[in-house]
Amino acid sequence: MRLLGLCGSTRTGSWNRALLDAAAELAPAGVTIEPWDLRRLPMYDDDIRLAGFPAEVVAFREAVRAADGLVFATPEYNRSLPTILKNAIDWASRAPDQPFNGKKAAIMTASNGALGGALANHHLRQVLVYLNVFVLPGPEVMVGLSPTKFKDGRLADEPTREAVRRHMAALASFARA
Amino acid sequence: MRLLGLCGSTRTGSWNRALLDAAAELAPAGVTIEPWDLRRLPMYDDDIRLAGFPAEVVAFREAVRAADGLVFATPEYNRSLPTILKNAIDWASRAPDQPFNGKKAAIMTASNGALGGALANHHLRQVLVYLNVFVLPGPEVMVGLSPTKFKDGRLADEPTREAVRRHMAALASFARA
Amino acid sequence: MRLLGLCGSTRTGSWNRALLDAAAELAPAGVTIEPWDLRRLPMYDDDIRLAGFPAEVVAFREAVRAADGLVFATPEYNRSLPTILKNAIDWASRAPDQPFNGKKAAIMTASNGALGGALANHHLRQVLVYLNVFVLPGPEVMVGLSPTKFKDGRLADEPTREAVRRHMAALASFARA
Amino acid sequence: MRLLGLCGSTRTGSWNRALLDAAAELAPAGVTIEPWDLRRLPMYDDDIRLAGFPAEVVAFREAVRAADGLVFATPEYNRSLPTILKNAIDWASRAPDQPFNGKKAAIMTASNGALGGALANHHLRQVLVYLNVFVLPGPEVMVGLSPTKFKDGRLADEPTREAVRRHMAALASFARA
Repeated sequence: MRLLGLCGSTRTGSWNRALLDAAAELAPAGVTIEPWDLRRLPMYDDDIRLAGFPAEVVAFREAVRAADGLVFATPEYNRSLPTILKNAIDWASRAPDQPFNGKKAAIMTASNGALGGALANHHLRQVLVYLNVFVLPGPEVMVGLSPTKFKDGRLADEPTREAVRRHMAALASFARA
Repeated sequence: MRLLGLCGSTRTGSWNRALLDAAAELAPAGVTIEPWDLRRLPMYDDDIRLAGFPAEVVAFREAVRAADGLVFATPEYNRSLPTILKNAIDWASRAPDQPFNGKKAAIMTASNGALGGALANHHLRQVLVYLNVFVLPGPEVMVGLSPTKFKDGRLADEPTREAVRRHMAALASFARA
Repeated sequence: MRLLGLCGSTRTGSWNRALLDAAAELAPAGVTIEPWDLRRLPMYDDDIRLAGFPAEVVAFREAVRAADGLVFATPEYNRSLPTILKNAIDWASRAPDQPFNGKKAAIMTASNGALGGALANHHLRQVLVYLNVFVLPGPEVMVGLSPTKFKDGRLADEPTREAVRRHMAALASFARA
Repeated sequence: MRLLGLCGSTRTGSWNRALLDAAAELAPAGVTIEPWDLRRLPMYDDDIRLAGFPAEVVAFREAVRAADGLVFATPEYNRSLPTILKNAIDWASRAPDQPFNGKKAAIMTASNGALGGALANHHLRQVLVYLNVFVLPGPEVMVGLSPTKFKDGRLADEPTREAVRRHMAALASFARA
């Protein structure tokens, strides 16, 4: 099973990139997560779209289409999705044949604060309903107080690692059904 | 396949009751929807709960547990769930062994106004994530301008009937997986 | 300035009742908060409403109308409003002359978990937009891990007390404008 | 009173740009709305931010800071904010001295579909709570079925024009308080 990993943060030392790495490490045997760097995409513009999808957009849409499932790991920016993640979704969502249609997905969020990105988590869920994505409900992974849970660029907190392990097992089972 | 039908409106001539009837009529062969009248439940009270679930609450929890899936049809009250529906969920959600866990569900909303209960639809989705319910994403059924679409207590608008038919087919397929 | 205090929890030893007590204690001089016990209201029913508002509903609507502003303190039940609070709002929201119209309000939430009722906080904000209530934005008061912050039925955590103090000062200033 | 107009769509013939034009036309005497073209901003990137705000970002932040209030008009992209609008907010929201703090604002949305951008409207409200913006509650302006309401690049539907007029009068009154 080949899952596509989409990270909403691009900064060096990103908690969410480390969370995605942990998901790859803790996923069941036979499940791989291949990250796709969302910085490759230009900023969404309707006039550009109407002139034809740029090459990187085509590549992204193909990567979504080819995947057996999706794993999102994202911070919360101002109680919603970071620009870079919304940008990728806006490009991929456009007709014809939007590639998210019918996919299975899991959402994890991590933040510095106590809420663990809960609002971004739910905004992303609302977006994905519209794109006809089947999103795993629980066990929810919303990692708060990230500076206390990651160490040297690695998810170190054992209860959080266990939650990620269960989340990935549930996603694999859901995506196989 | 026996689905439990939960209607958020109790008034005579409710659009949402008619919507649930349409879902039962338009569901694939072999799929039945049995409504459960949420008025049977007392108002949620933590002190009563701690003294033991009332008999009707026990019966409701058993009905949820026994179902092969759930079909919600609800109006929007003040941009969120009607009291009677939130009440049922609050009773059923409590430990031990909350019966929503792992169920598959579909959500339909109908309202007089243009929005078709879109905000209530999404509040209910957020609630059900927490209860570990797998909710069908699309095709969304949000019926706006209900007075123009129901006639003599029956869903009469053909495009809406087709949307309900596809929604129920998708739920049956999802719940079987 | 006489504010109406509306608490979404009725259990003995409720964190949110203690939060409302703290708000009353820490409000600026000249500002009082009078609680209204939402248990007095019957469960919302459209048929009852059409036959005429029950006496307790009339009393509640008058209390909202007479207030110079509103202070909500509520737990989160299943990522949304507790039944008892939604019930009160559904009763009060009905025509004619819904009494929330144009009021100023503040929302505080407290919960056992880490999120501090953030989802309920925002569901309530969405509800109040519809009722044309002007809700104070920040500084947000979402009290997580309540068992560590309340002691002997009193809000004991000093940073949280300071946040409540600032929230009430901001509300008083907003409601005076 | 000088309001800043922020439009979430950049395409030629945008309904939301025409909605913003209508707001300018229908605002009370003495109130002007100056649009700021969000396409001028580069895509948000934390590494760029840490190296110093680009010149256009500085200009945007100054424009927000100098305004007596904000008027948003935006489409809904995938049930949330368009990339270009989230991008502008993410740039402006960063420390130090984020310029949205304490501003008054109004939100209007327009879409082709029946919902009128209701979900984007509420996502934007949630974002603005976090930035301590006081957002006008009602009368809500959510323009659905836009192709039937705009003509030759101008808002032509009279009931919608009246709703915009009342919305702008309410904003002017709110921003003056």
